Parts: sequence; C-alpha cells; structure tokens
Amino acid sequence: MATISQPGAAVREPTLDDVRAAAKRLRGVVTRTPLLYPATPGFPLAGQVILKAENLQVTGSFKPRGAYNKLASLPPEERARGVVAFSSGNHAQGVAYAARLLGVPATIIMPRGAVASKLEATRALGAEVVQVGATSQERLEYGMALARETGRPVVPAYDDPMIMAGQGTTGLEILEDRPDVEAVIVCLGGGGLLAGIALAIKSVRPDVRVIGVEPAGAADGQASLRAGRIVTLDHPDTVADGLRATHLGDLPFALISRLVDDIVTVTEEEIRAAVLALHRGAKLVVEPSGAVAVGALMHGKTGVEGRRVVATLSGGNIDQALLAEWLQA
Amino acid sequence: MATISQPGAAVREPTLDDVRAAAKRLRGVVTRTPLLYPATPGFPLAGQVILKAENLQVTGSFKPRGAYNKLASLPPEERARGVVAFSSGNHAQGVAYAARLLGVPATIIMPRGAVASKLEATRALGAEVVQVGATSQERLEYGMALARETGRPVVPAYDDPMIMAGQGTTGLEILEDRPDVEAVIVCLGGGGLLAGIALAIKSVRPDVRVIGVEPAGAADGQASLRAGRIVTLDHPDTVADGLRATHLGDLPFALISRLVDDIVTVTEEEIRAAVLALHRGAKLVVEPSGAVAVGALMHGKTGVEGRRVVATLSGGNIDQALLAEWLQA
Repeated sequence: MATISQPGAAVREPTLDDVRAAAKRLRGVVTRTPLLYPATPGFPLAGQVILKAENLQVTGSFKPRGAYNKLASLPPEERARGVVAFSSGNHAQGVAYAARLLGVPATIIMPRGAVASKLEATRALGAEVVQVGATSQERLEYGMALARETGRPVVPAYDDPMIMAGQGTTGLEILEDRPDVEAVIVCLGGGGLLAGIALAIKSVRPDVRVIGVEPAGAADGQASLRAGRIVTLDHPDTVADGLRATHLGDLPFALISRLVDDIVTVTEEEIRAAVLALHRGAKLVVEPSGAVAVGALMHGKTGVEGRRVVATLSGGNIDQALLAEWLQA
Repeated sequence: MATISQPGAAVREPTLDDVRAAAKRLRGVVTRTPLLYPATPGFPLAGQVILKAENLQVTGSFKPRGAYNKLASLPPEERARGVVAFSSGNHAQGVAYAARLLGVPATIIMPRGAVASKLEATRALGAEVVQVGATSQERLEYGMALARETGRPVVPAYDDPMIMAGQGTTGLEILEDRPDVEAVIVCLGGGGLLAGIALAIKSVRPDVRVIGVEPAGAADGQASLRAGRIVTLDHPDTVADGLRATHLGDLPFALISRLVDDIVTVTEEEIRAAVLALHRGAKLVVEPSGAVAVGALMHGKTGVEGRRVVATLSGGNIDQALLAEWLQA
C-alpha cells in the first residue's frame, strides 16, 4: 500500500532518523504518555513492571502517532486531496484525529458489521465513514479504486515506513524516561508498533531485549519468526480484536525478524486476567489487545521476569459491556 | 491530632517551603503522576480540561504523598516505635505504603464494617489492621489510647502541616507541567488535598483560580466557607466515600478560607456521570470521590469553563462491582 501514496518513492525500511523526525512532528500533537508504577496490592506485578500507558493516548490507542506522522510527511498538495484508510478499530480513529488536525478530509472504509461505538467515534472525529462488504478483500478493492479515482493517498495501518517510524516514538520515550530499561514487551498484530519500537530501541541500545506478544489464537507472528518468512493464518480467533491481522506486513516483518529477540503467546484466559489486573490494580482501562504484554509477564512467558521491564499497553478501547461482564464474573 | 505526634511542637500552618521540602522527600517514592489530555469522542470534556491523574498514584490515590512526608519528617527514634492511623480507605493504604518503605510498623484502625477489599489491600501492604467499633468516636478513643500507651505517633488523615505539605506537591507538579494553567479544580473531603494544592499554587501564582468540589450530600466545606467558621454535617450522604468527613480540619480550614476562590457541589447523578465519562472516554478507573472535579466541569458548576483548567482525579479505588453495575445501566 505504501507505493500507492508515493508512486515514485521506493518502499524502504524506516531508520532511527525517521523515528527522531517523527518525534519532532508529534510534539504537542499526541500525548507523551507516562510510565506508570502501580503498587496496589490488587496488581499482581506491583514492583515488577513499568507500564507505558498508550491506552491514555489521545484517541485511546497508539495509532495517532503513526497516522499523524504519515499524513504530516505527505507532500501538502497530495494530502490536500484527502486520504483513505481501512480499519474497523483504532487505526480509524488515529487517522481521523490526524486528518482533522491537518485539515484534511479522511474517508475510512469500515466493515458492514463494525461495532456502532467505533463507527460513531470515527465520525465524531470528523471522518467520513463508508461501510463496505463483509470481507477485507472487498474493502481493499473498494478502497484502492477510490484512491485511484480520486488521487487520494491510502494511509496503511502498519506496512509503511512513516507509520512505523511514528509508532517507534513510543520506544524513544521509553528510553528517555528509563535509560536503565532491560527489556520491553510489546503487543503484536500487523507489526507496526513492535517493529517501530524495536527499531528505536535496538538502534540505540542493542542490549535491551525486545519481545513481542500475540494471542495463541493469532500466532502468525511467532510462526513467521520461526519459519523465517511471513506465515498467514486463515482464521485468527481471539478476543483481542486489534491483533487479528492474518499476517505481518512486509516491512514490519523485515525489521521484526532482524531485531526482535522473541515472540511469545498468551491464552484467552491470560488476556482476560491481565485486563482485570490492570483495571483493579492499576486503575487503567485497557483493551484485550493492549493487555497481552502484561498477560505474558503475569504468566511467566517472557523469560525476562526479574529484570527492569517495560510493558506497553497499546490501547483502551474495550467494549464496555464486555468489561462489565468480566468485572462481575 | 497533630499535637499527639509532636507533643512539644506548636501546631502551625504549612508553608510553601514545606511543600518544596516534601517534593524533595517524595522523589522516587511516589509516582510523578501525568497530566492527561483525553481527546476521544467518548469524553465530553475533550479539549476542555487537563487531568491530573492521582488515581494512577502508587496506591491508587494521592494519600501516600502526605503519609510519606509525615513519616519521613518524624524524628527517626520516634518513628522507629511505629505509627498509628485511622482510616477506612485510601489513607490506610497511603500510611501502610509509607511505613513499609521506611521500615516502620504501622497499625491502622479500621471500622468493623470496612469493605473486605480495603482491609486486604492495607494488610497486603504490610500494616497491622485492627477493626474497632462502629463509630469514629470509638476508633478515636481506641487509637489515642494505643498511641499514648505505646508512644507511637498518630498519622492524621489531613489535619497536620506535613500531611498537607505532602498533598500540596500535587499542586507544584501541575505548575511545573503547565505554567500557563488558569484554574485548578480539586475534590474536598477533610481538606488536606485542597488546602495543600491551594497553598502550593496561590503562593506562586495568586492569579490561578483554585476551586473545591464536594458532593451536595456532604457540603460542609461550602457551608464553612460561607459561614467563615467550620460547620459540621451530622450525616453526610454520598456515594463518594472519601468525601464523607463531617467537617474540615482546623488547619485545612484556615488555609482554604483564606486561599480558595470557591467551593461548589455536585449531585450523586453528576458524580456517576463523571465516573462513567472518565472510564469510557479517558480510559481511567476513577472512584466517585476522585471524579467530582470532572463532574463539576461537565455540568458547568465551576465558572471557569473555557479557561485552561486542570481537574484533579484524587483516586481510583472504586468498588469494582458498583462500577460494573454502572457500566451496564
């Protein structure tokens, strides 16, 4: 998709300089999210983990980092025509937020069956929402046709150097706030956040371990790392709706396979336990996709227990009815 | 109570220097909580308020600031005998946390009917919990006798210069992070947090408005400010259990009556709406007592709408079953 937005530009891996440039662009645009140290007895990892709270990011997830960086780095005349994006979730809100700030029209293509609250949230941020088809293939065809006809660039969810560089600013902030960090645990869906953070951290501090976590029911990343090529999973099955990508992006995979130390998995029950521990003990609303890193640590999956560990919480946009049900169980 | 712990010391108002000394003592001991800028469409005050998130403080409330400052400023030989405190809630955990860090035994006197989760949380932080009587008078008599017999100092919940100075560090942090702030809204129970923040802010920036908020069912503070003397409310009635103090402390009242611009009230329904808005829109778990400042802003009660406003969220230790019920309603 990256080639659509910049037909003449070679698709290339992002560099540390790209991440640093993104950090400058994002100043005052997104929240410099805090590192948190919950110590309540209700939090089973009290004193054992530092949380990077991207659930407190402006749109409730890390996505506006990459989206704004991408839009802001497009040539103004190209951007002015408006942008197109595909998403049923957090990327939609990230693009809508960035487009509004830059005064750019955004059309977001969402599935017919998308959750009403996510449609509303995206529209409330000023984007035009078009609901197309049941399959991602139908949406892709529709969106690509729209992009071609209108000359509007597509804003990919992860497979783009500027998107990855934007997400990587999360890693720079972790290093700035805790130069003594020994390991960083990151959730893994399409790979934009993990690749961006790995790039930022390993470029500066190759000794820091960077570990990806995905649901056991959507473990295409772990399979890809082991196989040394991108493995596609036909039917990802997990409550973590942000991590249901069937396969890694090409660019994220290139970085992840070179830089990431390990990819581990968590069960659905471990994800639920992590969401509840963060809610009860850390006073944070975290969505299932955003809780997998803590879930992996809680259940001894990462091999870095006992070291100075930062776990990223990637988002907080959980279905409130589901959360209420879990709280009462 | 302040005279119990330092029999020879005159009870005096805290000063800005006390707050600055507290900030030094607290470095690395409590979290420097973030200012947050939620911009999700689910948050009705998006773009209109900055949140000081003390619900993300180490024990889930601002209380360890004052408790640690108090304990750390006691003479070591006095502190070594251990400390006594009264609380059914957040102060208990604040004292337990501070005592553990300083290696001091803490006995917390809690009501017989105290919520099991709060008893457990306090014990889990290493404190000895003694459940005494149904009335606060019984607990006071028991605790004072214990303090006399054992020579252990009492750690008051708010009516003490070192406690107030500790809570006031919240105000210093707000000024450091947003020197352009125009108004600060603070919840009001016994008055320690409001008095401490007012002291910190008005000493440096008398032009910044400082406004207290309390539940309409526990509005002794507003009555006191209007009457020019401490008014006692016999039966405070509110879901905001941290704001049920029947009257302000003497020292907090002295500062509040001189420094605070206004005290406003919120209804029970407005408190509930604020808790839900913070949960859904800001991804924060905030207890009813901690949500009153946002409730006042959401309902146009403060007279500072449209200005650069920081609302303090004082704590996140909400009963999870109650929250689940509210989320489903």
